[in-house]
Amino acid sequence: MSKVLIVGAGGVGRVVVHKCAQRKDIFSAITLASRTKSKCDEIAAEIKDVTVKTVQVDADNVPALVALIQQEQPQLLINVALPYQDLTIMDACLETGVDYLDTANYEPHETAKFEYSWQWAYHDRFKEQGVMALLGSGFDPGVTNVFTALAAKKYLDVIEELDIIDANAGNHGQPFATNFNPEINIREITATCRHWENGQWVESAPLTTKRVFDFPEGIGPMNIYRLYHEEMESLVKHIPTIKKAQFWMTFSDNYLKHLEVLQNVGMTRIDEVEFQGQKIVPIQFLKALLPDPASLGPLTKGKTCIGVIARGTKDGQRKQVYIYNICDHEACYQETNSQAISYTTGVPAVVGGIMMVTGQWHAPGVWNMEQFDPEVFLAELGPMGLPHRVVEGEWPEL
Amino acid sequence: MSKVLIVGAGGVGRVVVHKCAQRKDIFSAITLASRTKSKCDEIAAEIKDVTVKTVQVDADNVPALVALIQQEQPQLLINVALPYQDLTIMDACLETGVDYLDTANYEPHETAKFEYSWQWAYHDRFKEQGVMALLGSGFDPGVTNVFTALAAKKYLDVIEELDIIDANAGNHGQPFATNFNPEINIREITATCRHWENGQWVESAPLTTKRVFDFPEGIGPMNIYRLYHEEMESLVKHIPTIKKAQFWMTFSDNYLKHLEVLQNVGMTRIDEVEFQGQKIVPIQFLKALLPDPASLGPLTKGKTCIGVIARGTKDGQRKQVYIYNICDHEACYQETNSQAISYTTGVPAVVGGIMMVTGQWHAPGVWNMEQFDPEVFLAELGPMGLPHRVVEGEWPEL
Repeated sequence: MSKVLIVGAGGVGRVVVHKCAQRKDIFSAITLASRTKSKCDEIAAEIKDVTVKTVQVDADNVPALVALIQQEQPQLLINVALPYQDLTIMDACLETGVDYLDTANYEPHETAKFEYSWQWAYHDRFKEQGVMALLGSGFDPGVTNVFTALAAKKYLDVIEELDIIDANAGNHGQPFATNFNPEINIREITATCRHWENGQWVESAPLTTKRVFDFPEGIGPMNIYRLYHEEMESLVKHIPTIKKAQFWMTFSDNYLKHLEVLQNVGMTRIDEVEFQGQKIVPIQFLKALLPDPASLGPLTKGKTCIGVIARGTKDGQRKQVYIYNICDHEACYQETNSQAISYTTGVPAVVGGIMMVTGQWHAPGVWNMEQFDPEVFLAELGPMGLPHRVVEGEWPEL
Repeated sequence: MSKVLIVGAGGVGRVVVHKCAQRKDIFSAITLASRTKSKCDEIAAEIKDVTVKTVQVDADNVPALVALIQQEQPQLLINVALPYQDLTIMDACLETGVDYLDTANYEPHETAKFEYSWQWAYHDRFKEQGVMALLGSGFDPGVTNVFTALAAKKYLDVIEELDIIDANAGNHGQPFATNFNPEINIREITATCRHWENGQWVESAPLTTKRVFDFPEGIGPMNIYRLYHEEMESLVKHIPTIKKAQFWMTFSDNYLKHLEVLQNVGMTRIDEVEFQGQKIVPIQFLKALLPDPASLGPLTKGKTCIGVIARGTKDGQRKQVYIYNICDHEACYQETNSQAISYTTGVPAVVGGIMMVTGQWHAPGVWNMEQFDPEVFLAELGPMGLPHRVVEGEWPEL
């Protein structure tokens, strides 16, 4: 029985609290902290049979985090705050000797740079202190790493090509809105695309490589666009047989039209602009104008489908395997007051936490998901709400 | 020989200064005033053989304007500042007994309301003081009013229908930019459409009525959209035989796409939004991000075509007449360092000023352009750079 401290009270934080509260067998006490305590209180009020303690904290402030951890004495800290805050929270965990888990890699404010270098640099210090950090325990990164590890363990002897494919086949009925923090979302999508090919990263302009993929179980064909996505960096490092890795995401024509215009006029800029004597970052002002992603929850219908196609050899034969999850927005909302985008990130965070506190996945140091046994993780993930399917077959090269 | 005081140092102000300087026979001295004196100095430096005096003034401040007028002692003040400032400048002219001319009607900041009521309310006071105000002496309003008056004077006994059609067939090569102050431009375009029909204003949603019009002299067919435009208000008042009046403007699909997205995300809002403890008007922030219209001058190629089709009867027969001007962006820039959008507004302001200071158009009170003899105005307008053509023929109903 473990105490857990959750930092971050956005859509993902809400799912993490709901799901931890469902596992009283594992989590004996839950504390939820955020810059805005009222957001914590709102989530805590939704939990009926467990008391969730709420606290205000500034996650940019290491001494404040340290004081909070010392006060709450958790076994595990689940970080679902902003990616800018990963390092301060890791610093506080190191100082207090508390295990750490997050769902998205650190990125500095000034550049939209997605890489593990900053967090991997903590490995020796975590190891020396006997503390564990599990990085990227959401869906993508997270479950996609686990699916890849499963393909490597059970279905293929050698993985040579990997396509990670993320479809949101849902619809919120708004002219334009992002399904999670618009600042984080747009930074990612408008960054230069990179994919892995023959031992190096190959760059291409954002959103210029487009394919059609026929998604399973009635979702059907949708446009997918190649993006850089952070799990590729750890996967090609830890599974070095991978010669080619690409990440794909669906976007509607309407979404891309809005994004193109907002880029054209400069509203997606992440640098400061002088305006009436103040410095304003355009994408932050845009975020203030767009609908709060939380407000989309009750409006969103349809499904997500996220998975990996791993291609390689088994017993000397070419073989392909597609491992995926399908998740329904309305069912997620009914269970946790959040749609599937938050749900598919929050549930794997809780399952990663269960792996850590039960010792099924545990080692001092900083780790990515594919470095542990995928089968014990997936054995918890399905019952927790995200079952997966494995299909062997053939898919066109993307 | 008259002294002129020009208030406003944007693109139109630049054209007015250049054109007044060309008419040393009329204007003995030119003073240019603006909130930002450096903008005045930049324009003054372009004028080679006439000295243009430059002064800083806050056009929202009546006492400051009065002091400036008393110091400069002009015969005429040409107001090419922002439409929000028309009333303060009129107040200062009334107080000092100096004639007033502008190119766009007053509008309050809070609502995009285009109507002459505020300025017409000054008529009796101007009349009593023996001072003249000429409203809307740009191209549209302005020359379009004069073209309509010419149709009424020379070509038709009765005007029954009027279509005012404004084409910008030029291209600046930017993904999105407005040809004049983006705030003023977008306020106008996104306002509810009104047209005159059978003695009343008929409202329709913005940009929903679309036609194709085949423009003359090689410009060819372009999409035109119905808008409200202020000259219709004075024209249907002063020429009461007009049963139907509509205003049309060309917009490219690309321009409308950008506008649609900016509206969807709230960037065209004219109300204040709370952001990081400050109050920000989104359209003003958008203006700060978009290219300065002045920067488009050297990039803009192609022509404008603005005119009126008046339909009615002559000697008991149905008759139509199309009166228009075609203006070339690059030729305007070569002459005045401004493209045709500013040129077609600034030149008629100077010609209106010439009408007033020479006494060809002069009467105490507040007046619109169609209330004076169109032929003397047009006799100056052509040699000053904006010749017109009159074509009798038939055009499809719009």
